[in-house]
Amino acid sequence: MSKQLIFGHKNPDTDTIASAITYDYLKKQLGYDTEAVALGEVNGETQFALDSFNVKTPRVIETASNEVKDVILVDHNEKQQSVSDLDQLTIKEVIDHHRIANFETAQPLYYRAEPVGCTATILNKLFKEHNVTIPKEIAGLMVSAIVSDSLLFKSPTCTQEDIDAAKELASIAEVDVEVYGLEMLKAGAYLSDQSIDDLLTLDAKTFELGNSQVEIAQVNTVDPNELLEQATDIKAEMTNKINDKNLDLFVFVVTDILANDSIVITLGSQKDAVEKAFNVTLVDDTATLKGVVSRKKQIVPPLTDALS
Amino acid sequence: MSKQLIFGHKNPDTDTIASAITYDYLKKQLGYDTEAVALGEVNGETQFALDSFNVKTPRVIETASNEVKDVILVDHNEKQQSVSDLDQLTIKEVIDHHRIANFETAQPLYYRAEPVGCTATILNKLFKEHNVTIPKEIAGLMVSAIVSDSLLFKSPTCTQEDIDAAKELASIAEVDVEVYGLEMLKAGAYLSDQSIDDLLTLDAKTFELGNSQVEIAQVNTVDPNELLEQATDIKAEMTNKINDKNLDLFVFVVTDILANDSIVITLGSQKDAVEKAFNVTLVDDTATLKGVVSRKKQIVPPLTDALS
Repeated sequence: MSKQLIFGHKNPDTDTIASAITYDYLKKQLGYDTEAVALGEVNGETQFALDSFNVKTPRVIETASNEVKDVILVDHNEKQQSVSDLDQLTIKEVIDHHRIANFETAQPLYYRAEPVGCTATILNKLFKEHNVTIPKEIAGLMVSAIVSDSLLFKSPTCTQEDIDAAKELASIAEVDVEVYGLEMLKAGAYLSDQSIDDLLTLDAKTFELGNSQVEIAQVNTVDPNELLEQATDIKAEMTNKINDKNLDLFVFVVTDILANDSIVITLGSQKDAVEKAFNVTLVDDTATLKGVVSRKKQIVPPLTDALS
Repeated sequence: MSKQLIFGHKNPDTDTIASAITYDYLKKQLGYDTEAVALGEVNGETQFALDSFNVKTPRVIETASNEVKDVILVDHNEKQQSVSDLDQLTIKEVIDHHRIANFETAQPLYYRAEPVGCTATILNKLFKEHNVTIPKEIAGLMVSAIVSDSLLFKSPTCTQEDIDAAKELASIAEVDVEVYGLEMLKAGAYLSDQSIDDLLTLDAKTFELGNSQVEIAQVNTVDPNELLEQATDIKAEMTNKINDKNLDLFVFVVTDILANDSIVITLGSQKDAVEKAFNVTLVDDTATLKGVVSRKKQIVPPLTDALS
């Protein structure tokens, strides 16, 4: 049996990295030759989680077909979010919690998707199904993933299964999920020394909504005002990106992880769609979206409707 | 919670019908409002299985959006094999053992695919995961599905998991799997009073391989020569279907369930692909494929390569 690489999506977040490492552990226990790798440098929040549980950061790869024939995808399935040479590889397994799109295989495979808030919640079930014990450091990474994807259970993507799994795993990891979780989220929040380019790219995703090219970047913070003071510079850089990437809309989402609201700064020819989608009036291209924290569940669907 | 319809693919076979009925039973035990339906009349083999275990034949639907919003697919995922108005429905779940292609959702869903020989083998795991007991008649249908898809464990698609599941289920169903299985396969094999149109449509699937539209129909028999005597009429009808459906290739697979070989009759502009795929020379558009019994594992992959 030849070696298989396991990886999550580009612009990796905590769930993607933690799930690759976690599934790699499980597959090794089951006798497979696997390695967890990353499709980009880990962010501050993920590094905090890795350091907290003393787990090595996975190496970054650009392509996989130069090393292996077979791969396992976690936390994603869409081709454009994956390794660039996916077409030259056999996808043996997918463990994911997103919609399925831009995905095709020539052969049957193991595909496990569930509509839960976090890939780690599904992996928790797989350990049980295979009767494998979760070690402390792996449980710690899995809690981190659930806290990250659910913003400490406050995101509408969070299900009861995620909450139950996080409690179980926190007990194995010997952490207080509320205390550890907030610390981890703060470690990943905006830091005053971050460049504006980083803010607009580190957690950015491109979507085709209706016929519009839309870029949605998101940053977490405990102090949105500190960020909004730089609005003029942020807007200048957003305009550059709109021109460079030929975008119809750029939405920059500043999420207040303590208040659980988001402030959006938006530019582009389809700017009106934001007013329509969220029933708000933009003042200086900016509006507050009360209770909105999830790009996947609270931003993309209403914007899709407004642009269709 | 609104009602959900559960169905397998068009031109239903025993696994598709048995899996819809089986999963419907499980979902009902879990408190869901579901109904198993079929996308076509059942074949002789499936009717034998239903009659053997005294289970009602599911009603046939043409479209689903006139009845429900949400559906569950079993034993298939490709759009062209599913209900015609799939685009207007929300796919809540898929339980399948085929490759994934021509499949896309707007929302996350439960997707469970495993590279085993039969959907019923996966369903057997789901009963265990949910701690639900399998009643005798459902176990009987599940054994029937495994026997059918694996040609009594002789197909290369058959895995150890399928064999283990079939043994377990045969014991619940109180049947001798070898005796019952052969009886069931014979009930589904070619009967001399079947029309040529039935032969070419009852177990036919359409595939897009490379850029070619390919139809592959399969029939089981205990006496291939009886069928091949009608080759002229069969080819005339195949030509009609190629013209009607604008096909690039039609492959008619006559599988000898006692010898475990298949004879193919093939027509269409891409006929050469069959010679290339199986390294055979067609004589009168016909060739014997030694040891080939599985459309999914032994016919589609080499044809995909030959047409790409």
